[in-house]
Amino acid sequence: MTARPVLGILGGGQLAQMMALAAIPLGIQCHIYDPDPVAPARLCAIHHCAAYDDTAALSRFAASVDVITYEFENIPLSCVTFLNTHKPIMPGVTALQMCQDRLTEKTFARSLGFATAPFVDLAPSVSSSDALRTVGTPAILKTRRMGYDGKGQQTIQTAAELDQARTAYATHELILEGIVPFLHEVSIIATRAQDGTTVRYPLIQNTHRNGILRTSLAPAPCRTADLEALADQIASTVLDALGYVGVLTIECFVVDAPSGSTLVINEFAPRVHNSGHWSIEGASTSQFAYHVRAVMGLRIDPPALRGFSALCNLIGDEPDHKDIPAGVSMHRYHKTPRPGRKVGHLTITTPDHASLKHTIDACCQLIGGRIA
Amino acid sequence: MTARPVLGILGGGQLAQMMALAAIPLGIQCHIYDPDPVAPARLCAIHHCAAYDDTAALSRFAASVDVITYEFENIPLSCVTFLNTHKPIMPGVTALQMCQDRLTEKTFARSLGFATAPFVDLAPSVSSSDALRTVGTPAILKTRRMGYDGKGQQTIQTAAELDQARTAYATHELILEGIVPFLHEVSIIATRAQDGTTVRYPLIQNTHRNGILRTSLAPAPCRTADLEALADQIASTVLDALGYVGVLTIECFVVDAPSGSTLVINEFAPRVHNSGHWSIEGASTSQFAYHVRAVMGLRIDPPALRGFSALCNLIGDEPDHKDIPAGVSMHRYHKTPRPGRKVGHLTITTPDHASLKHTIDACCQLIGGRIA
Repeated sequence: MTARPVLGILGGGQLAQMMALAAIPLGIQCHIYDPDPVAPARLCAIHHCAAYDDTAALSRFAASVDVITYEFENIPLSCVTFLNTHKPIMPGVTALQMCQDRLTEKTFARSLGFATAPFVDLAPSVSSSDALRTVGTPAILKTRRMGYDGKGQQTIQTAAELDQARTAYATHELILEGIVPFLHEVSIIATRAQDGTTVRYPLIQNTHRNGILRTSLAPAPCRTADLEALADQIASTVLDALGYVGVLTIECFVVDAPSGSTLVINEFAPRVHNSGHWSIEGASTSQFAYHVRAVMGLRIDPPALRGFSALCNLIGDEPDHKDIPAGVSMHRYHKTPRPGRKVGHLTITTPDHASLKHTIDACCQLIGGRIA
Repeated sequence: MTARPVLGILGGGQLAQMMALAAIPLGIQCHIYDPDPVAPARLCAIHHCAAYDDTAALSRFAASVDVITYEFENIPLSCVTFLNTHKPIMPGVTALQMCQDRLTEKTFARSLGFATAPFVDLAPSVSSSDALRTVGTPAILKTRRMGYDGKGQQTIQTAAELDQARTAYATHELILEGIVPFLHEVSIIATRAQDGTTVRYPLIQNTHRNGILRTSLAPAPCRTADLEALADQIASTVLDALGYVGVLTIECFVVDAPSGSTLVINEFAPRVHNSGHWSIEGASTSQFAYHVRAVMGLRIDPPALRGFSALCNLIGDEPDHKDIPAGVSMHRYHKTPRPGRKVGHLTITTPDHASLKHTIDACCQLIGGRIA
């Protein structure tokens, strides 16, 4: 056998699975590292099943791959810094560290001149009433680290409530954020190659419920030329500042501004993102192929979109194949369904926006009972 | 874990690999059975590595899957009939038997009223000169079984030459075919579901060199409404006659006829086909997804084509990723390159025919030295 490049992925969930499915046709084999014996990506990758602090297993993993990436940002930093002494990790440790901490990422975004929600570092010296005065009420209390899908968040109305919550979360570093009166939620999904080339999809418009993404529309119906231009600026500035390689997702709010609507950065995800799953069917290059190409040192070309796409998450349950409307692609993640768990998604790609809406309605009706 | 449906595939080459890549998002896991320890499909399937006559291994394979299919028609019939007593095999044994034998398939095609090349069963009682008189000269001598990519074929000019070849091939059953003065080569790729629904792609136009497929264009530039109507009739008649489930490929010649051009059936392949690889990018449902859906009992919907597509095979060598023009997808099969071996393919999908031609020219230039 000719030696084939091997990509190592920390985490073996559906994102790793879809990365591996994109890697194989490119001539690249994947290894995943995940302590879960039934990690979904094991179906299309070599599975290293061990704990994230098992240095012997991590060393064997590093020895078996050429480049390492990850499918989630909450990976222990000790694990990543250990692996980084063996093999290149992309996106780099700096980017990962930045995205693991809501305080660092917001500070970073502001340092580049971009808007974020008002925020306060809830250091012990900061009083709850001062913090609330800075960001306004209601506010959202968040753990600085390890939050996802709305976990580790709480809405706060009063200083007393905040005091109580700070006691309850005493073991965590906390950040208090002001609420942004947004018109829409959008994401920027951009890729930077090793040679510095940057490409991105048009803005994607997202709907969340209970903190979990429900639907994404690409391109975003709310997009304007000004918003796209700002998204370009945000993407290239952030990616270049981090010397980033791979896919970066930037979740933003669209808000009213004196000069028309503008973007307020909410958070970064240093990886492929749920709001980009439509790109498997809806773009000439999927976000998974982009990420693999970038971290493996391949050239990236701008995407061509195949009309209008919509993504609907399947949460807690999978519909039967027979109930899926014609023209809709169901992706199943091979995960055991349980309430609130993302177990798959539907993608709809149509030439025009009107027929897209019609099919989305059919899908929402189908999964309506399931996404409550 | 919820029990997931499992598809068993006999053969673990690139066709099985692409089937498994299509199966996983559908929530279906694949097992492959292939004696080659580096069978390409092992990257995304559980690999049963054993000989086709190892009944113990075949039994274990059958026990681990729900449905069995195959990626090549030259699989030993004993193996398939053995497995058929354990688990359903689709397409069925009858279809496989028919497609394994050039004599049977041509007789079958004629029995349904369709045109084939002139042919003679070269039974020992048939003299070479009589045979040549029936089919004309030059003629093509073929083994009835086990031929592919032009192997097991020889052009014949005289009865003496034929006598000599028959002696050389004395251990094989032989068929002598007349040469069809064709305008174009096309393939019909059709799918029949378990409920009898039949769908197909528009005609695909193919170019061969040295008996190996080089390029395919979809839809076929030579297609006419009459040819498509005849293709519909051929596909549905053949599929229904065989009670077929899965993808069937029918290779045809386009020939001049008094009433305009018509189709002459050349051969059947009871499987996904090289000339359909463009469908991964170029159609809403790929031939691999169709095959998996059909044999696993899922509904099939008619395909929507994403513009015009072209496929170029990579034979003997793989170009570097950096040399691939923008907008062209390279698929690598993870096979060790050697002369004459299919190691990958390129797919080009464009909205219009003119830009397709431009990119094909660039690809041909790139791989020009390699396809001689």
